[in-house]
Amino acid sequence: MNPGDRVRVERADVTNEGVLMPSSTAEHLVIKLDGGYNVGVDREAASVDVLESDVHVVDDEPDPEAGDVSEITFDDDLPTISLISTGGTIASTVDYRTGAVTARFDAEDVLRAVPDLAGRANYRGRVVANILSENMDPSIWQDLAHAVHEEIAAGADGVVVMHGTDTMQYSAAALSFILETPVPIVLTGSQRSADRPSSDNVMNAVCAVEAAKSDCAEVLVCMHADESDDACALHRGTRVRKNHTSRRDAFETVGAKPLGEIDYETATEDGSDGAVADEAITLRREYASRGETLDIEPDLAADVELATFAPGMDPAAWEYLEDAAGVVVAGTGLGHVHTDLIPRIEALVDDGTPVVMTSQCLEGRVCDRVYDTGRDLLDAGVIEGGDMLLETAMVKLMWAVANADDVAGTMRTSLAGELTAESRPWR
Amino acid sequence: MNPGDRVRVERADVTNEGVLMPSSTAEHLVIKLDGGYNVGVDREAASVDVLESDVHVVDDEPDPEAGDVSEITFDDDLPTISLISTGGTIASTVDYRTGAVTARFDAEDVLRAVPDLAGRANYRGRVVANILSENMDPSIWQDLAHAVHEEIAAGADGVVVMHGTDTMQYSAAALSFILETPVPIVLTGSQRSADRPSSDNVMNAVCAVEAAKSDCAEVLVCMHADESDDACALHRGTRVRKNHTSRRDAFETVGAKPLGEIDYETATEDGSDGAVADEAITLRREYASRGETLDIEPDLAADVELATFAPGMDPAAWEYLEDAAGVVVAGTGLGHVHTDLIPRIEALVDDGTPVVMTSQCLEGRVCDRVYDTGRDLLDAGVIEGGDMLLETAMVKLMWAVANADDVAGTMRTSLAGELTAESRPWR
Repeated sequence: MNPGDRVRVERADVTNEGVLMPSSTAEHLVIKLDGGYNVGVDREAASVDVLESDVHVVDDEPDPEAGDVSEITFDDDLPTISLISTGGTIASTVDYRTGAVTARFDAEDVLRAVPDLAGRANYRGRVVANILSENMDPSIWQDLAHAVHEEIAAGADGVVVMHGTDTMQYSAAALSFILETPVPIVLTGSQRSADRPSSDNVMNAVCAVEAAKSDCAEVLVCMHADESDDACALHRGTRVRKNHTSRRDAFETVGAKPLGEIDYETATEDGSDGAVADEAITLRREYASRGETLDIEPDLAADVELATFAPGMDPAAWEYLEDAAGVVVAGTGLGHVHTDLIPRIEALVDDGTPVVMTSQCLEGRVCDRVYDTGRDLLDAGVIEGGDMLLETAMVKLMWAVANADDVAGTMRTSLAGELTAESRPWR
Repeated sequence: MNPGDRVRVERADVTNEGVLMPSSTAEHLVIKLDGGYNVGVDREAASVDVLESDVHVVDDEPDPEAGDVSEITFDDDLPTISLISTGGTIASTVDYRTGAVTARFDAEDVLRAVPDLAGRANYRGRVVANILSENMDPSIWQDLAHAVHEEIAAGADGVVVMHGTDTMQYSAAALSFILETPVPIVLTGSQRSADRPSSDNVMNAVCAVEAAKSDCAEVLVCMHADESDDACALHRGTRVRKNHTSRRDAFETVGAKPLGEIDYETATEDGSDGAVADEAITLRREYASRGETLDIEPDLAADVELATFAPGMDPAAWEYLEDAAGVVVAGTGLGHVHTDLIPRIEALVDDGTPVVMTSQCLEGRVCDRVYDTGRDLLDAGVIEGGDMLLETAMVKLMWAVANADDVAGTMRTSLAGELTAESRPWR
């Protein structure tokens, strides 16, 4: 059997049928099901029947009847959008149609995979990784930032990053701190794969391209706004969180409405052209407009740790933090931990490790000036995280330790909308 | 100077004036401000003026004009509600009026502190602790459970627990698993202390007493339903989370509407008597009605740890888990971690440590049967946490390890509403 063969695989009473894909490990077979979904099967004790050979070559032929585009012509009137793939459910759409998992990914592949994108832009395609997003790490964030930087330097009018949803919020935060961008950088993904009737992949991709054509030169996350197919929400990359395991509208701007949205009906009206973005997009708040400056500061101190407080925890559990470059504490309420942990935090600070306090509450802001515990934490040298999301605070601290002379001052200053002004005194 | 003196304390340009309270540490002075709020001041370098001696003795005299009740008569027509104090902002109301921090706390004190409670029930008062809730730990949950058990055994028709808000959700979960109760057990607290115009302490206390008189024999959290003063929400103790640092309606039932609510206007109508609860309370879903069975299984394996996954984390950070009695992992999305962490989890399981997977998403449920990573985790022996809140899962695992023969089976079975049935297949 070879990648490209149509196979039936049986293991432990489960049968999967589809196209055998290249696998990154020797232990697993990867099978692309007919709907475009990948499953992995332990090779050990699996029985494989090859049903047909080299099936993916057939799939690779463009089919004009199905809306495939066989010849890509560059249209001077359209903006150029760079599509960067990192993996995840949304990328499997592209993989399925092309039959390629990690190799080529060009404009033709994009349009063959999502024909609805045709006529909206000229496309450039690029693959940075092909991983499930739980395997993302700071070094891949850096690779991604360099790729985005190169695409913009090469003339892209906007960038769309296809990303798994599980750690999209971390990658969006990393790009927000690493890059200063003159064009939109829009992350999108898919909560339901292409084989499911409720798949969100086409709509999210179309809306992300429209957002990438807009005037909003920020790092954005573009995903379903609600359970209907009416609109995609645009979330600022430093204020967004995946708050539901499976819903299509899992992503939320924490503590506020999203920055804006893309109306899908307007975005897909007949006769749509390069100007459609202006009509389809609504931006509710102040945002950074398109500009000239492109800059990258990619250094990250990867060994920043997130330490979650819980009642009953053993203070010794935090011994490993002694080697960290920085620590973000997920505290209770206004930003507290058990009194017994305060000397440990003080020792870290005295040892030169910046410690940032955030709250498990998600919404609101830490305020350590009210209760004894909070004042003791401030005395110990804790940096208050304001209303930063704890995931964002962790990524920002990685960046601040590597790039800032004044880490505490940098953490207290909003660099990319991650801190918002108090709407009222908390009392 | 002695506790009970009215003092002015200056330290580092900050002046506080109020009644000196007994302090549990030699390093701090505790001053009860006029509004009932406690502040702690570092004794070192603080200058103290005694303005008046023994002020709290004066405050201890009942004042009928102010609604104080000087003689408590037992009313056979009213239910008996036990009020148990553990500390936190709401308890400071009681402390202020009585001038006592940890000592006596009886029916007279309750009514002097919150006169609005008069006429609703016969009260018993009891102090289990007087701590900020970030200092709660499993041994205090056990003390609290024993106290609740004793109060119910002594004839209480309902129990109200006054608790700091920061870890109230953990204590509510602990009581839910430890106790089988024939009467309501209602936790309440206060997000704003009595000295602030927007204080929620009186309304939360009144609504909690009404809830404790109701037919709902479950562990409930009773807090403001929204930013107005119209109603308090009743949250099931295993499904509730503090989702905002400072709002009065910080507590939310995750993924659903609250179990019920108390309409404050109805609860405070003139002529209210013991029957008012029936009109003021709305219960939206199935609940456990009052019954006969009172039981307690207080054992907890306190050394269960909560391990939060984050991209870029050092797998060595989880070495300390080797000594844990159980581990709850806060994973991404459907319940994933970086592939590199799976062997570490497998080693824990092989060593006999139960490992439960939950999601950082808050809403939705983990499902490890779809993606490679999830199947690998199941192969490693991970117990799926379903839609349990990660805080609830941690407390439940403490209880399950100490009490259940089949820990995995117990974790997968809903004991106190902590797991809800799937409303639809997640796909």
